[in-house]
This record gives sequence, C-alpha cells and structure tokens, in this order.
Amino acid sequence: MVTVDLNADLGEGFGRWTLGDDEAMLDVVSSANIACGFHAGDPAGIRRTVRLAAERGVVVGAHVGYRDLAGFGRRAMDVPGAELQADVIYQLGALAGLAAAEGTVVRYVKPHGALYNTAQGDERVAHDVAAAVAAVDPSLVMLGLPGSVALAAAAEHGLPTAAEAFADRAYTPAGTLVPRRDPGAVLHDPVLVAGRMVRLVTEGVVEAVDGTLVAVAADSICVHGDSPGAVTTARALRAALREAGVRLAAFAPGA
Amino acid sequence: MVTVDLNADLGEGFGRWTLGDDEAMLDVVSSANIACGFHAGDPAGIRRTVRLAAERGVVVGAHVGYRDLAGFGRRAMDVPGAELQADVIYQLGALAGLAAAEGTVVRYVKPHGALYNTAQGDERVAHDVAAAVAAVDPSLVMLGLPGSVALAAAAEHGLPTAAEAFADRAYTPAGTLVPRRDPGAVLHDPVLVAGRMVRLVTEGVVEAVDGTLVAVAADSICVHGDSPGAVTTARALRAALREAGVRLAAFAPGA
Amino acid sequence: MVTVDLNADLGEGFGRWTLGDDEAMLDVVSSANIACGFHAGDPAGIRRTVRLAAERGVVVGAHVGYRDLAGFGRRAMDVPGAELQADVIYQLGALAGLAAAEGTVVRYVKPHGALYNTAQGDERVAHDVAAAVAAVDPSLVMLGLPGSVALAAAAEHGLPTAAEAFADRAYTPAGTLVPRRDPGAVLHDPVLVAGRMVRLVTEGVVEAVDGTLVAVAADSICVHGDSPGAVTTARALRAALREAGVRLAAFAPGA
Amino acid sequence: MVTVDLNADLGEGFGRWTLGDDEAMLDVVSSANIACGFHAGDPAGIRRTVRLAAERGVVVGAHVGYRDLAGFGRRAMDVPGAELQADVIYQLGALAGLAAAEGTVVRYVKPHGALYNTAQGDERVAHDVAAAVAAVDPSLVMLGLPGSVALAAAAEHGLPTAAEAFADRAYTPAGTLVPRRDPGAVLHDPVLVAGRMVRLVTEGVVEAVDGTLVAVAADSICVHGDSPGAVTTARALRAALREAGVRLAAFAPGA
Repeated sequence: MVTVDLNADLGEGFGRWTLGDDEAMLDVVSSANIACGFHAGDPAGIRRTVRLAAERGVVVGAHVGYRDLAGFGRRAMDVPGAELQADVIYQLGALAGLAAAEGTVVRYVKPHGALYNTAQGDERVAHDVAAAVAAVDPSLVMLGLPGSVALAAAAEHGLPTAAEAFADRAYTPAGTLVPRRDPGAVLHDPVLVAGRMVRLVTEGVVEAVDGTLVAVAADSICVHGDSPGAVTTARALRAALREAGVRLAAFAPGA
Repeated sequence: MVTVDLNADLGEGFGRWTLGDDEAMLDVVSSANIACGFHAGDPAGIRRTVRLAAERGVVVGAHVGYRDLAGFGRRAMDVPGAELQADVIYQLGALAGLAAAEGTVVRYVKPHGALYNTAQGDERVAHDVAAAVAAVDPSLVMLGLPGSVALAAAAEHGLPTAAEAFADRAYTPAGTLVPRRDPGAVLHDPVLVAGRMVRLVTEGVVEAVDGTLVAVAADSICVHGDSPGAVTTARALRAALREAGVRLAAFAPGA
Repeated sequence: MVTVDLNADLGEGFGRWTLGDDEAMLDVVSSANIACGFHAGDPAGIRRTVRLAAERGVVVGAHVGYRDLAGFGRRAMDVPGAELQADVIYQLGALAGLAAAEGTVVRYVKPHGALYNTAQGDERVAHDVAAAVAAVDPSLVMLGLPGSVALAAAAEHGLPTAAEAFADRAYTPAGTLVPRRDPGAVLHDPVLVAGRMVRLVTEGVVEAVDGTLVAVAADSICVHGDSPGAVTTARALRAALREAGVRLAAFAPGA
Repeated sequence: MVTVDLNADLGEGFGRWTLGDDEAMLDVVSSANIACGFHAGDPAGIRRTVRLAAERGVVVGAHVGYRDLAGFGRRAMDVPGAELQADVIYQLGALAGLAAAEGTVVRYVKPHGALYNTAQGDERVAHDVAAAVAAVDPSLVMLGLPGSVALAAAAEHGLPTAAEAFADRAYTPAGTLVPRRDPGAVLHDPVLVAGRMVRLVTEGVVEAVDGTLVAVAADSICVHGDSPGAVTTARALRAALREAGVRLAAFAPGA
C-alpha cells in the first residue's frame, strides 16, 4: 500500500498573536513542523501545540529559524557558522524540553523560511544546520527538498533524510519549484492541488508548468494552514489521498 | 572530610557583550549556573561556557530567568503560571541541548535575579518553577536558600534540593540575608569573606550583623565573578577552604 | 452642542502578525492610540497605521508600554524610574518620527496595558510617565481615568489632561471600573453599550452595577477593536451618539 | 585654518552590559555616533550618552542599524525597503526624542555595521536609508565613505553629506579601505595612525598599502573607542592634530 506524510508549519503565534488554526491542521497532517521561538512561537504557545499534536499522534518536528521575530524568519541573514549551529541546537533543545514535558519527543528537523531556502542550496549553511542536529541527536530526520544540498549535507553528517513536495506550488520541467515571484507559482484550486498530489504519490510524477511530466520524489507533502482557505485545501488533499487508497503515515514515526 | 560546593553565575554575556571572566571563575567553582538566553546568554556564548565547564569537570546548572534582556532579569515581572512554567522548560531544554552537543548534561536549576528572589518566598511562583523542572527531569536538583519556599516547593514536586549561602552577603540574626539596599549588606574584604565561609562550612554558623552567631545550612556557597575584584575574592575563598581542610565537591555530581 | 471623542488601540500587529482591523476602526474613532514597538507594533506597521489615521483626520496618540512583546505589555513589571522614563521617551520619539514622515504629529499619550493600570494608581510610575512626556513636549495631552493619580501627576508636570470612559466596562457605585476578573465586568451587548455611553455623554452619568446612577467625567470613550464583534459595537456606538446629536471631535485636535 | 571632525561609535551598551568608555571618548571626539536601540543601546543608556555629549558640546548623530541585538548589527540582513525605511525612521525618532529630553538635537546620520557596509555600495539600500532620513528631517547630514553610493543617494534625496576616513585602517591605491579580512587591514600603532591622519588632513593624501600616496577626502575621521588601547590611540590622534595646527570642529554644527 502506498503511503505518504503530510506536514505543516504550526505553533506560529507569539504571545497575544495567533496565526493559523493549529487544531484544525493537526486533524489533517501526520507531521507538525513546530516553531521554536526564534522566528515565531512563545514557549506556552509551543507547548500547547506540542500537546495537541501528541494527543492526536501527530509527529513533532523542530521548525528552526533565524532569530528574527520582526521578519518572521523570512529575511536572509548572514549568520556565522558557530552562531548558526548554536542557534539551531538551542531551538532544538528548547522544543525537546517542551516535548518531554508533554510526554513526547522531537523526531525531525525542518529549517524555516529564509534558513530553509538558504540551506537547500548553500553548502556552508546546510552543513552548519546538519552538524548542529547531529551534535544533539543523530536519529533526527532532516526534511528538505529532494536532491537538495540540505539533504546531502544531512546524510554526510549521518542523519536520516526525508524529501518533501509542496502541494500548492508549481514545478519546473527540472523538478524544482517555480520561484514565488513568478506568475503561476502558487496554486489555489483545491481540486487541482489534490489531483496533482495524488498523481505524485501514486505515479511519482507531477505536471510541470510546460505541461511535461517530471519525476519528483516525496516522502512528505507540505501543506499550508495559515488561512481558512488553506485548511480547506489541506482537508481536500487528505480526502483525495485516502480516496485514492493512499495511507497517511509519518515519515519519522515513534518507536 | 567536610565538603562544600562553590557556585557562580556564568555565561552572562550576550553577543558582542561580555560580562565577567568565565574561564577564571571556572577554575574556582565546582558548579556553574549558566544563563539560558532569557536574561542573558546567546546560544554560541552559552555553548562556549558549557564547553569550558565540561573541560574542567565543573557541573552545569540552568540559571533560568525572566524574559528580560534589557533588565538582565532583575526586574520583577508578573508572569502567569502557564507562561512561567513554559518559559522555564524552554530555557532548561535549550541549555540541555547545548550541553548534549558538548557531551555533558544539566544537573541542577537555580533561578536568576528577580525570579530567584520571588521564588524564595512566593508559593505560586515557587511551585511553577518546581513543576516546570519536574516535568522535564525529576532528577534535577533545585538550588536555593535554606528553608525557602522555593526548596519546599521543589521537594513537594519530588526534586532533590540543595541550600546555598552567599559569600559576600551579611546575615541577619534570623539567618536570612540582609537586604541589598541596607548598609553593610555586601561584604568586600576577601579575607573577611573567606574566614566567614570557612567557619560556615566547618562549624555551621555565620556571624550575623548584630554579632551573634547564627546557624546556616549550606551545601553550596555562591560567589560572584562579574568584576576583577570578585574573581580575587572567589580565589581567596577557595584557597582558604582548602587550607582549612575542606574539600570542594559539586552538590549534584554526575554518575 | 455636546461633543465627545472616541479612542481605540491600534497598530497592534507585529511583523507577520496582525491584530484587529485598523482601517475599520479608523473609520469609527477620532483618536488612535498607536502602539510604539515595545508591547506591539513594528515600525513599518506603525507607519502604515499612522498614514491611515492621517488620511482620515484621526488624531495620533502614543500608546506607550512596557518592553514586553511576549506578554503584550500586560504583565506588571517593576521598572526603575530612570529606565521607565527613558523607555517612554524612546517610544514617543519613535512614533513622532514615523508621524513626521507621514506629515502628521503625535498629540497625546496613553499608557498601555499593565503600564496604564499601574500609572492610574501608583504615584512613582505616574510621575515617571508624566515627567518623560513633559521632557519631550509639554503640549502633549495625557489620557487616563478621571480622578486618577496618572492625570494628577500629568497636571503637576504641566501637561494638559483628558479623561476617558470605557464603553464596554461596568462601573462601581464609586464611579470606578469593575475589575475584569469580576462577573459582569465586561459588557457585550452593542445596544446596551451604546445606550449607556449616550447617557454618559449627554447626562454625565452611567448606571453602576448596583443600579444607582454615578457621575463619570469623560472627554473620550475608549472602544475596542480587536475582534469583529468589537468593530460592530464601536460602529453602533458611533451611530447612536450621532443620532443623539452628539458631535465626535478629538480631545487633542491639531492646529 | 584647517579643520577636521573626529567621530566615534558610542552608547553601545545594552542594559547591564557596557562597551567602551563613553566619557573618555566624548572628551576626544567632536561628533558622537549614538546607537539607537536596534543593534545596541537601551533607552536609559542612550539618554545618558546623549547627556554626556551635550554637556561637552559634542554633536549627536544617529547610528542606525539592523534590528539584531544578538549580532550587534554586524550580520547582513535582507530587509525589504518599506521595513528598512521604517526601521531607520523609528530609530531616528527615538534618538531625537531622547535628545530633546536632554535639550539637544540630532544633526547627522551614520548607518552602523552591516547596514553601513551595504549602504556604501548597494543602490537600493542606500536610497532606502536616504529616503528615510529625508522623510524625517532633510537638514540631517549623511556621513559615509567619500565617493560612496550612500553619499550619492543622500545627495539625490537633498541631504547634506560628509565624508569620513578611518584612522586605524589601511587604504588601497584606489583610496578604498583594505578589507578587514586582509592582513594589515587594521593599524595598531598610535604614532603611525596619528601621523597618517595629520597628513590626510593637512595634505589630503594617505599612504596606501603599496607605498603610493592616494588622495582621500575626509570631513571627519572615525576613531574607535571600544578598548582601552583604542582610547589611547584616539587621544594621540587628537593631540597630534592639534600640534599640527588642525582645529577640531564638528562637520554638522548646531546653530
């Protein structure tokens, strides 16, 4: 039976401010990328999201980012290696502490925002992130783009890896994401999105922007949850996958 | 043979800013209260201090504080229980992650600044801190004032406790610290300080401000290291204790 | 003709996070208490709110708070006088800079959250806030509770003052607000709220929780805007005041 | 009579942390680049430095930086234009408020750290900084490298400009600074530094690393003050300039 994981960014509020509907999304996904306090997430809010995930058997991952609350971790920053490594370890440890307090554990790591984008292609940053994760717990899985520098670096540091596709993004004929600034980069039709991802999971291909079919490897599909429409799309995708006989299963399950 | 622990606040820089001489103090103390990022301590700086401590066999403790870099955690804050507990867990986990990356572990907790002062006497805050520590790791030792609400709460939550004296502080006839704002509250003479602490460790008493002797229980003596003079005092105390036949030993040793 | 001002807290987002509907509320109120970055408000978001206010002729006030993004400025903090005064001046200046860039000026000050609550009754804090405002611009109006320590301190420092009532709050027979934690402290019925405030403006009285009428002086009425229901209530109040022949006019108008 | 200005970065502490000796440096320089809170500088500390400057007749400038306390504003950040402009205005306004409270005014702007480096060569960033300054007060002088994109952008926005040389830096034959990472980039000999700067001011040339003389225009000389040795160097430079008949005078004097 074919299986796939669904992941989403969660725990992205901060104090008085909320973002997205964590409870609704945790009923859809099998893996939760939980903010660790540097780009979003205050400790009490993170803890609540960890608890909600644990209650539903959703696997917890560390969504580590740059120290940039004002920019939500979306602004590229030139952080020296020793600082970046320590920042990643600090966030990982903090989330692990909150997870322990809720009787669960962190199973994987996915960099957030600008750190994600940079780590997919920049050797030094990818190695800093991987080295930091490996220094804390080499059983943690690194989640990233298939074929990326990030996953290669993780493998070099002895970490298991998992590849993800993005449900609402267009792909180039080379199997990479169409940059966000390009027209048509983001897909909004839930039916279209669901159909594309079912095909990706069952046939291993996605239709690129030029109409050709391109092979894309994906252990997990990233869905967004920070708007009511996004939750609807995520639910439609989940339903379509089930209808197509695909079983939802975390890529980094517990013992 | 009589033993005692020496503890000091370390890792209290932040980025470009340094405070105290961690290396010098780590050659004096047996336990290091390491800042966890909320009142002081950036991850790379914390990691460096953890490494220096581990290299010297100095035991690592979590110096958890209020989220208040601008006030160095010295300003009382009315933090609701759920927030305070999560804040403590977050800091503990973050330090534990950095300790793991350096091949060591966190063995005890000492609240910092205003959180320390409040937790020694405020039931709710003391229980929040203790509950947070117990939720992460019930083998962690709580360090605080002898007879304090903080240690009683820790014991109620099943945590081991350790009592500390302050080397450079005057005591009341009741065995409590003379408030900082009172004249004579802080002692500056290294010889006087060393003599008082030797007596405390070997006889269990300290001379109070009125000249009477008062019994003070202490598993550890807190020394300060944030000025050159403080390092000198700490070294003099260590030498005097050794000369008096007192063995320095951490109150929370590793396995 | 009877006039009154309506004020609301605005500009309370931070980076990626939004709070309330500033545009909707700016079509209702005559004075905007704009966050200054310490409890909420990133510079670009503050600037946008200032611009929207200026476009509508809504008067801009500085909503200064404690440095506490994680707690939204709602946690009491024991900030020493010199720090508090400088913090207030810093926020005032920052908002004044953004106002200047948008061709307008700051006309009044209203402390936020825990700083507001403390300043209404605490002599030292009230004088620190007033001294800070007077040091920058003694023509700024201080907005606060009628008969409060905050307004008395402002007057002593030579500042003009304005008193406010709270549209959605119950009053005691003594004319003070029923504490939020008490049952019935917050009113939710738009019609009831509107009727009470019309009476307050036209007759100078409000019905207290025990059914008696109590005199309350108010140059301005504070309305909340951080929920869709709150906007509806604010609009209903504005409509009811107009229908009753009351003219909306800022208490601190420009030249 | 030949005149020149001396400028230094000041007010760079934060809360409990100090950096450099502001009082000593304010006895040496004629212009003070004062941190505005984003890379360094808490409001009370900034206010103190402004007061010390005002007491000595030292001109106050705004040392605006990226929002990056952990990195001291030295890490390049990709901040979108609207955010960067508002961040600059916010910092300028905040410093202006504190200056007003101390009876003085801000007369010029010098970006700090990574923002300085980027603004000297990056058109978009240079224009964002210049536009922000011009939006607040077009009489503010922009201080930067001679011939830089930063000064050109400032001039386009109608701002007066001033060029600076760096006392302790080596120059290329093209009149630009030798990059810090290159050997010999930073000069440490006070006598050598003083001699070079006297020649720069009196003859308009400096000896480049290849021994050739290169013309460098400078209205001001930047000296560093964040170490005891740096203060000594700054004093030696001041003495040498006076001995050479050069008058120290701020490039942006008050009325």
